[in-house]
Amino acid sequence: MPKQPIVEITRVLTFAASHRLYNPDWENERNDEVFGKCNNFYGHGHDYDVRVTLRGPADPETGMVINLNIVDRITREEIVEPCDHKHLNHDVQWLRGINPTTENLAVAFWDRLLPHFGEALYKVRVQENPRNWCTYRGEKG
Amino acid sequence: MPKQPIVEITRVLTFAASHRLYNPDWENERNDEVFGKCNNFYGHGHDYDVRVTLRGPADPETGMVINLNIVDRITREEIVEPCDHKHLNHDVQWLRGINPTTENLAVAFWDRLLPHFGEALYKVRVQENPRNWCTYRGEKG
Amino acid sequence: MPKQPIVEITRVLTFAASHRLYNPDWENERNDEVFGKCNNFYGHGHDYDVRVTLRGPADPETGMVINLNIVDRITREEIVEPCDHKHLNHDVQWLRGINPTTENLAVAFWDRLLPHFGEALYKVRVQENPRNWCTYRGEKG
Amino acid sequence: MPKQPIVEITRVLTFAASHRLYNPDWENERNDEVFGKCNNFYGHGHDYDVRVTLRGPADPETGMVINLNIVDRITREEIVEPCDHKHLNHDVQWLRGINPTTENLAVAFWDRLLPHFGEALYKVRVQENPRNWCTYRGEKG
Amino acid sequence: MPKQPIVEITRVLTFAASHRLYNPDWENERNDEVFGKCNNFYGHGHDYDVRVTLRGPADPETGMVINLNIVDRITREEIVEPCDHKHLNHDVQWLRGINPTTENLAVAFWDRLLPHFGEALYKVRVQENPRNWCTYRGEKG
Amino acid sequence: MPKQPIVEITRVLTFAASHRLYNPDWENERNDEVFGKCNNFYGHGHDYDVRVTLRGPADPETGMVINLNIVDRITREEIVEPCDHKHLNHDVQWLRGINPTTENLAVAFWDRLLPHFGEALYKVRVQENPRNWCTYRGEKG
Repeated sequence: MPKQPIVEITRVLTFAASHRLYNPDWENERNDEVFGKCNNFYGHGHDYDVRVTLRGPADPETGMVINLNIVDRITREEIVEPCDHKHLNHDVQWLRGINPTTENLAVAFWDRLLPHFGEALYKVRVQENPRNWCTYRGEKG
Repeated sequence: MPKQPIVEITRVLTFAASHRLYNPDWENERNDEVFGKCNNFYGHGHDYDVRVTLRGPADPETGMVINLNIVDRITREEIVEPCDHKHLNHDVQWLRGINPTTENLAVAFWDRLLPHFGEALYKVRVQENPRNWCTYRGEKG
Repeated sequence: MPKQPIVEITRVLTFAASHRLYNPDWENERNDEVFGKCNNFYGHGHDYDVRVTLRGPADPETGMVINLNIVDRITREEIVEPCDHKHLNHDVQWLRGINPTTENLAVAFWDRLLPHFGEALYKVRVQENPRNWCTYRGEKG
Repeated sequence: MPKQPIVEITRVLTFAASHRLYNPDWENERNDEVFGKCNNFYGHGHDYDVRVTLRGPADPETGMVINLNIVDRITREEIVEPCDHKHLNHDVQWLRGINPTTENLAVAFWDRLLPHFGEALYKVRVQENPRNWCTYRGEKG
Repeated sequence: MPKQPIVEITRVLTFAASHRLYNPDWENERNDEVFGKCNNFYGHGHDYDVRVTLRGPADPETGMVINLNIVDRITREEIVEPCDHKHLNHDVQWLRGINPTTENLAVAFWDRLLPHFGEALYKVRVQENPRNWCTYRGEKG
Repeated sequence: MPKQPIVEITRVLTFAASHRLYNPDWENERNDEVFGKCNNFYGHGHDYDVRVTLRGPADPETGMVINLNIVDRITREEIVEPCDHKHLNHDVQWLRGINPTTENLAVAFWDRLLPHFGEALYKVRVQENPRNWCTYRGEKG
């Protein structure tokens, strides 16, 4: 088979959730200093926007890297359903003990999707609001 | 003074907050039935968008209905500062006992702004996310 | 019961569809003159955005005019499912013989929703793209 | 002819322009007090968004209130071309002596469009940025 | 000449079109299975958004990588004019035999632009709607 | 310490400003030819959108690459406050002699931020409007 174009496809999904940013090993004073109003005891919330990007050759038979229905289904099962209308610090088993910054969420979501998409997984972007987001590409250093 | 054009000006402000929808007089079962996943115990959250519309003649000396800095300052003091990065069911004194649907928030916000703007206050719109909002114009019936 | 605040709630739904604008009673030349490139034989398409607004008192027990899940379900059944990923001139039984301008779609969608929402139905807005939309409030004249 | 549905169609156009807000009859000190940084001598700028709404019966032969191409052409000629990539205080003949607030622009644009659209003209909305706009419906009081 | 900063400029253009996703070598049953409602016989449509990114040194005399008017003109001639208000499967000569997925469109659009921009062409992104897009950078593998 | 995930965080800030594009070493005729209506003597304006991206390991104690409050404060001090409600050709000391294209602004803003963020600074993107932007990553060539 001749070489195929390598493309990136992105799917956007959203969920609404609460979170509180703090380090449980610190005094509340230090948490306030570092996390400010994000350390509110009962939490606050966002309309999260998650963008999953897969990269690879477009299959010449379908013209697709992967069927978006599959991307949709997996992202819903692994991320949207567990997190939507939830408090991320209390309600999501696999986020226990994780401070839900966009950085940590992007890494946690990547780890949930990687077993499904393998090396096709290229980028996960987590947005708290249109002025603030984090992108993770699976790099460590 | 000759008649002046009557215009409407709108200012948009945003805040991030948690809320839980439920009626404390009901069994949890009924709350689940009516409010579904919005009844999650720890709440969930949104990036709220509040639009305040004032209506009146443009002052011929300034070309303004009212200085937007004033609209901004009052809306910040009355709505954004008390609600931003808060859980609306727990943290906001003047929302105690109010089920924080967009409908009830729109009315509560109107009531906060009315003493400042009087009959110039024309419309308050509260948006939970870009697919879902409520508008209140001060009518009762 | 004391008077309740009268509010308006809006729900946005979207669908992707094709359409062709023309009057079958006219020569193609006249159709080209009036509808220009919208008269393309095989049609062209849009990501439609439909906004349904209901108006009424917020129920003091629920804080809602009507449960948005109901608005969602009815609008999906009556509008989104029949129109999504369809050619509006060919595939939608109840649009047969209707030139699918935003004006005619807004009226047709209103007529589909009215039996469900009755006098609570306040406004239907059909958007072809972010630069172009039509609003219908059930008025005739 | 039986009664026709009365609908509202809206067209959005944009232009990029500079302006300075001040009252030339005032001392600069008072202008600073009232207009703040909007009184910058060389001006500042915006990507303006103008929304023209026409209202009337949809013509049964075309399914349109009015052909959007006409709305487009007239709004371009009367508003976009004179204002785009211009300084509104210096470059636009028919804005001379007008303090270019959104309020005054909405009224000035209405007056430009009224001779073309007559009573079909329903609403003109001028937006400086997504957080700030003014609507005029031709009312005086 | 000293080294110049290497920058990327992006221009967004839009068009409205219909398409149908299917493989003509397959039975309709298999097409339905793979492409679902995208296989609707008469097609469906989108408001496409095309983003062309060019990369290179900013010319010290103009402060530009390339004049955006040129990017605009070429993208209009090569992509927007042939595709706007068209059915991509029927009406566009150079898309004949190509299944119009976002992946295949991104590659086809790249191929149209490459002769004009050469190695300055850095990225082409084709968006069907705000939840779904594909990026191509000219790679094969 | 084990290896940490390397992530990118982005913060968006906005300002409203005027600018004029021209090369003062050229005749006005040539400026008109190259810069077209962007060469208007009094300038024109935009609602600029600046996106600052920082890249690095998320600190395991805070879950952050860097506190967004710091990104916010520095970007405000270095870029937003000097440029907001200003004419970029006249009012900003450190833009004197620079033709304020998006390309040159992206480089100038990068240079302002680099002393603060050092190698964590990954990308600066300057947008004039939603159809037109430039990205700089600190490369020269």
